[in-house]
Amino acid sequence: METSVEERPVAPAGGAGVQQVIAALSAHFGERLATGRAIREQHANTVTWLANEAPDAVVFVESTEEVQRVVRACAQHRVPVIAFGTGSSLEGQINAPKGGISIDLSRMNRVLSVHPEDLDCVVEPGVTRKQLNEHLRDAGLFFPIDPGADASLGGMASTRASGTNAVRYGTMKDNVIALTAVLANGEVITTARRAKKSSAGYDLTRLFVGAEGTLGIITSLTLRLAGIPEAISGGVCAFPTVRAACDAVILTIQTGLPIARIELLDEVQVRACNAYSKLDLAEQPTLFVEFHGTEASVHEQSERFSEIAAEYGGGGFRWATRPEDRTRLWQARHDAYWACLPLKPGAKALATDVCVPLSRLADCVDETKRDIEEMGMLAPIVGHVGDGNFHTVTLVDMSDPHDVAKAKDFIARMIKRSLAMGGTATGEHGVGQGKRAYMEAEHGSATLDAMRAIKQALDPHDIMNPGKILP
Amino acid sequence: METSVEERPVAPAGGAGVQQVIAALSAHFGERLATGRAIREQHANTVTWLANEAPDAVVFVESTEEVQRVVRACAQHRVPVIAFGTGSSLEGQINAPKGGISIDLSRMNRVLSVHPEDLDCVVEPGVTRKQLNEHLRDAGLFFPIDPGADASLGGMASTRASGTNAVRYGTMKDNVIALTAVLANGEVITTARRAKKSSAGYDLTRLFVGAEGTLGIITSLTLRLAGIPEAISGGVCAFPTVRAACDAVILTIQTGLPIARIELLDEVQVRACNAYSKLDLAEQPTLFVEFHGTEASVHEQSERFSEIAAEYGGGGFRWATRPEDRTRLWQARHDAYWACLPLKPGAKALATDVCVPLSRLADCVDETKRDIEEMGMLAPIVGHVGDGNFHTVTLVDMSDPHDVAKAKDFIARMIKRSLAMGGTATGEHGVGQGKRAYMEAEHGSATLDAMRAIKQALDPHDIMNPGKILP
Repeated sequence: METSVEERPVAPAGGAGVQQVIAALSAHFGERLATGRAIREQHANTVTWLANEAPDAVVFVESTEEVQRVVRACAQHRVPVIAFGTGSSLEGQINAPKGGISIDLSRMNRVLSVHPEDLDCVVEPGVTRKQLNEHLRDAGLFFPIDPGADASLGGMASTRASGTNAVRYGTMKDNVIALTAVLANGEVITTARRAKKSSAGYDLTRLFVGAEGTLGIITSLTLRLAGIPEAISGGVCAFPTVRAACDAVILTIQTGLPIARIELLDEVQVRACNAYSKLDLAEQPTLFVEFHGTEASVHEQSERFSEIAAEYGGGGFRWATRPEDRTRLWQARHDAYWACLPLKPGAKALATDVCVPLSRLADCVDETKRDIEEMGMLAPIVGHVGDGNFHTVTLVDMSDPHDVAKAKDFIARMIKRSLAMGGTATGEHGVGQGKRAYMEAEHGSATLDAMRAIKQALDPHDIMNPGKILP
Repeated sequence: METSVEERPVAPAGGAGVQQVIAALSAHFGERLATGRAIREQHANTVTWLANEAPDAVVFVESTEEVQRVVRACAQHRVPVIAFGTGSSLEGQINAPKGGISIDLSRMNRVLSVHPEDLDCVVEPGVTRKQLNEHLRDAGLFFPIDPGADASLGGMASTRASGTNAVRYGTMKDNVIALTAVLANGEVITTARRAKKSSAGYDLTRLFVGAEGTLGIITSLTLRLAGIPEAISGGVCAFPTVRAACDAVILTIQTGLPIARIELLDEVQVRACNAYSKLDLAEQPTLFVEFHGTEASVHEQSERFSEIAAEYGGGGFRWATRPEDRTRLWQARHDAYWACLPLKPGAKALATDVCVPLSRLADCVDETKRDIEEMGMLAPIVGHVGDGNFHTVTLVDMSDPHDVAKAKDFIARMIKRSLAMGGTATGEHGVGQGKRAYMEAEHGSATLDAMRAIKQALDPHDIMNPGKILP
């Protein structure tokens, strides 16, 4: 997935002010301020086809006060400031198209407190989801949001991430109770208290979730936790067609079955997973499902789901009753991206996603598959289909301009299709640079103007992650 | 709950511009523009001790375009504009302290579409929650948010309302998928698409939910629906102390029991309900609970809850197995407010609420009860305790300045207590005028400044419901 750092151009410098900022900060930060080319390029986009646009310097901060110090210096000289967690965002959120200072938050990685009675915890933004779940395990708790990468929680909040558990547990918008952030003026705000609900004024928490660092830098998060379920069961079920699988999903959701995960892999993705993860699944459209609850309730949910699946021709249901079998299946699901790569050796795999109302899911997936076929593309489909959300992993030969152009056209067509069906251009990857061009079509100009007004109000000199989200 | 209209002063006029606005609008609206005193006063606060501050005129709109027409006229002359649904808000949200035009949205009461496959619907803001549930019943669906009053859905979104089902189904913030609103500049925005999730830019949906009409006027809402549960069971259980009841609540939530409702009534409230609703409950702190699911799961949940309750001395669990018994119990719960009135004949009942982290609930309720006793107040307690949220209904003799002052002091002390415990000044009633004074203590000045910047950006001349939320 990585291309060589040396191949890429260095990003343009952040104007004359940036050297003054670097000079001003270096006394305090010493070796924690880095300007080497390799480290700067590691702090820009490396995972997709978007060009690597490196910042002028990287500062490894260790506290909210240090974030304030950097932001204040940047504000004084009108220099861009970009938050960096683990660098796993997919739409160029961490790129520095106008140069500037990357604030690396990975050293702010302490779990500050866990409140088991309240099912919440407070963490610094550099804590990753796996680190948090390790920390919580002994308390019988977990944090359910699981994007593919072991992303930082600050980054996950900033891109409004979700994952396979969202159908039951919601997305980051539903699981961040409060956060603190440093604004462009250097002030620290706390968006809410630790109470489970409140109607005390504007919901700044939700405004910052998904804002991709364009309104401020998140320096702590209060997160909602869930109890580790008493019982878990799951398995896989093959369907004759993608539409049949989607119809089974719709009925499952409609009947109120509290399913924890319901993931679609099309036959191309199943074939890839069989090869990569040494599975022997039938190479048909397949649902991976999981149920959480008590023993009795998990048993009942499994039975009900089997009945629904059977109605739509779902056959050969295979239960993974042993935890190790379940882990193997879900590991394969999480490795879907990597499994795609050998399908077209030397190609880059470009993950993109859309999300449509559930009633249009089968149409959208069907038409997308037809497009893949007609365009002669290789693009397996995986999806968090309980939410109407699916991904294509397009395999592109980056050295072939025709192949690249075709892939771009394919993604543009998929987004247009989603919008025409009442869907969104991005279900869970955010906007970044990659999807800015679709925001006008998605929101309309009056709504974008309102977003711009808010951005202008909180960041009048456009120093917070400029060039992202808003076209 | 009503006091005579004649007793109250007419609100100050909205400046010279208001007569020009009225003149400009009357040609279009004819008899749908009203300036009579009674109708104006009905469109200001009538339910609490906050003074009735009437608008200069009331316009009964029938479409988004008509809302735009009113807002544009008001913007031109810098005249305040206040949205009105059913008038059931509790913190003076509909008052017109600077005069202006009240936009009555009650005639925009059409259910525009229902999408059973997507579990959502689109409604105009004047649709009330009971009207919507009547409409949905045949489709096997319901909208779970249930504040005490039969409020309008636009009003419920604007105050970020919740109610007895929030512990399972969330609040308005979790159940509004998208909305359209008319901004102060007269433009119409649509905040999101109908997809279940999206990461496409700033979350304007959540920004408008809870904004109390200070950022724009909501003219349609896309709402998330739930399936009517296959089975429902519920009942009541008395506890030796409030603390024991709260501890049972904490364990219930912590074990992940998907309880649909869990409401606390203290012994004073139980006594009031016994008298008002002809019940014969033990006059002890009591939990009203309800479980939703399949027959088997509801049975299992009930058993588990009984075990938990027994651990904390909860005894004499009474199941309401027949639907009519359940309806009677929950009607009594919903009538709790009215049941309080006879406790102090001639008094006004002032409902207020706070919300604290669950771990502090018992402390907060205990200390509040001690305060009630020491201050010699009459103030039954009811609460959505699964969320850490509880209400006091303070009975006040409005003709006795000493009694009024004591009640104000009591409420101020309760809010201070909640804030000190990491809680909020308002769990579900909003801020309006009544709780503005506590926003500085709750949020701090930097956060309030950020809220003010957003308000200023979207409503530079402060015409949208001025004098609310922000101190």
